[in-house]
Amino acid sequence: MQIQYALELLGTLVFAISGALAVKDKSEDWFGAGFTGFVTAIGGGTLRDIMLGSYPLSWVGDMNIIYTILFGVLLTSFFNKFLQNLRRTLSLFDSMGIALFTVAGVEKALSMGVRWEIAAIMGMFSAVFGGVIRDTLVNETPVIFRKEIYASVCLLGGMLYTLLNYFELERDINFIVTASFIMSARLLAVKYHINFPKI
Amino acid sequence: MQIQYALELLGTLVFAISGALAVKDKSEDWFGAGFTGFVTAIGGGTLRDIMLGSYPLSWVGDMNIIYTILFGVLLTSFFNKFLQNLRRTLSLFDSMGIALFTVAGVEKALSMGVRWEIAAIMGMFSAVFGGVIRDTLVNETPVIFRKEIYASVCLLGGMLYTLLNYFELERDINFIVTASFIMSARLLAVKYHINFPKI
Amino acid sequence: MQIQYALELLGTLVFAISGALAVKDKSEDWFGAGFTGFVTAIGGGTLRDIMLGSYPLSWVGDMNIIYTILFGVLLTSFFNKFLQNLRRTLSLFDSMGIALFTVAGVEKALSMGVRWEIAAIMGMFSAVFGGVIRDTLVNETPVIFRKEIYASVCLLGGMLYTLLNYFELERDINFIVTASFIMSARLLAVKYHINFPKI
Repeated sequence: MQIQYALELLGTLVFAISGALAVKDKSEDWFGAGFTGFVTAIGGGTLRDIMLGSYPLSWVGDMNIIYTILFGVLLTSFFNKFLQNLRRTLSLFDSMGIALFTVAGVEKALSMGVRWEIAAIMGMFSAVFGGVIRDTLVNETPVIFRKEIYASVCLLGGMLYTLLNYFELERDINFIVTASFIMSARLLAVKYHINFPKI
Repeated sequence: MQIQYALELLGTLVFAISGALAVKDKSEDWFGAGFTGFVTAIGGGTLRDIMLGSYPLSWVGDMNIIYTILFGVLLTSFFNKFLQNLRRTLSLFDSMGIALFTVAGVEKALSMGVRWEIAAIMGMFSAVFGGVIRDTLVNETPVIFRKEIYASVCLLGGMLYTLLNYFELERDINFIVTASFIMSARLLAVKYHINFPKI
Repeated sequence: MQIQYALELLGTLVFAISGALAVKDKSEDWFGAGFTGFVTAIGGGTLRDIMLGSYPLSWVGDMNIIYTILFGVLLTSFFNKFLQNLRRTLSLFDSMGIALFTVAGVEKALSMGVRWEIAAIMGMFSAVFGGVIRDTLVNETPVIFRKEIYASVCLLGGMLYTLLNYFELERDINFIVTASFIMSARLLAVKYHINFPKI
């Protein structure tokens, strides 16, 4: 349980950073950066919890999520130049975020007793929705519609998690294995421009 | 009950096809077509269930909906050329979809005890929301903002359903009467470019 | 309680007017104006209630909200020329709307037992979401992304409300004090182009 919680907070942190960083590209104000970081970080989990009917929403019931987001936004503003100079930083934080949110989403859905197919879909939605809001807020084409594979990796990762779970792999190990798979697959897809076949 | 369920699955099928067909226009990849078909098919029902607080969401509690969507996406890919050649195919499937989802939405809202005015509005929202997501995903102007009457027909149809229901018309017949009304009205509006008066 | 309810209906009315007025700019049809007024008026409260898991949604359980919206849309159509001639009318109604919805949202969240920080955030979301939908529907840049401070004033106002509430200020007075603060701050920001500092 402790590893799951730690990974959820880490996912929240990297999504908050990816949201705040995205705004910096457009030279918006401080509040806008915090707002975008906040909405990016809570978007996926909020959609997941609403779809599952799980109340209170995770960020409504746990102030640590709010503190983590504030910390991520502050971090972004202090190390802004440094982070922006790393060309692929946004992509890196986004990839970590979708990996961690997929496994957290699948696990939560399974714990509420839904079937594995539905749990994998829930994991995918919770992973990609924060990024969709972020990119819409800063007027970029949502990452989900760009070339390289994205949501498909989350869905595949979600299925992998439920498969390993079926074979009773220890949950904390499953978390780390599946999240590593999603993150590596996504980063490789970006680096080598791997796409799905056209229709 | 069996007719209601059959019509809901049919509505899901035609919306999945309309979503997958919409993507084909833009030459996206296979996963994108499936994703758009899926989101189009579940969008309206998900909004309806969340607004009514009806859990589990219909597609979370019933794998037949998932299978129906997969079937619709496969169908679209096998008969792609054939379907695309029918110029008005997308419009046809969309019109069937809004007709079936309006009645399914109104019926579900009524069964949860809300007033008839609210039920009619719920029917309209469940009918049009899937198409709004579909058109947004493929970067077209959402059909709801285009010229011919659209959401208004669903609202009117929803009111008709509650009226016939008030006069105790047998439910299965009401389903078919109202759905036929909405579908015909919408197709006629498209064919003859019928609009609401300007302000 | 009566003042709270009256202010909620007033907020609904001004948001319905702001929605219907926004459409008039684009010369759409009557149904479009009503639809946009409706969605603008219920958007924020719907998001708030769904996030809090508070069912039935306020407009689902209370026909007065529907009647208020219809009244607002009719008012807009009768006094259209007059309202449009007041250059800052839309901004005025929108400012009243966000002020009233912020306090209503914070109060509802507090009454459901969430922490004050979360309640302030809920107030902000319920205030700004209706306007975001309105502006998206009529294809304008959502007011939240325009120059002058907007959501930040709602968040600040939400915090002020919880602070005064902590010091046990009588609720009806708190409603009026906080709503006046938000509305004045927003109108001053528009008039004098007050922005947050850039990053």
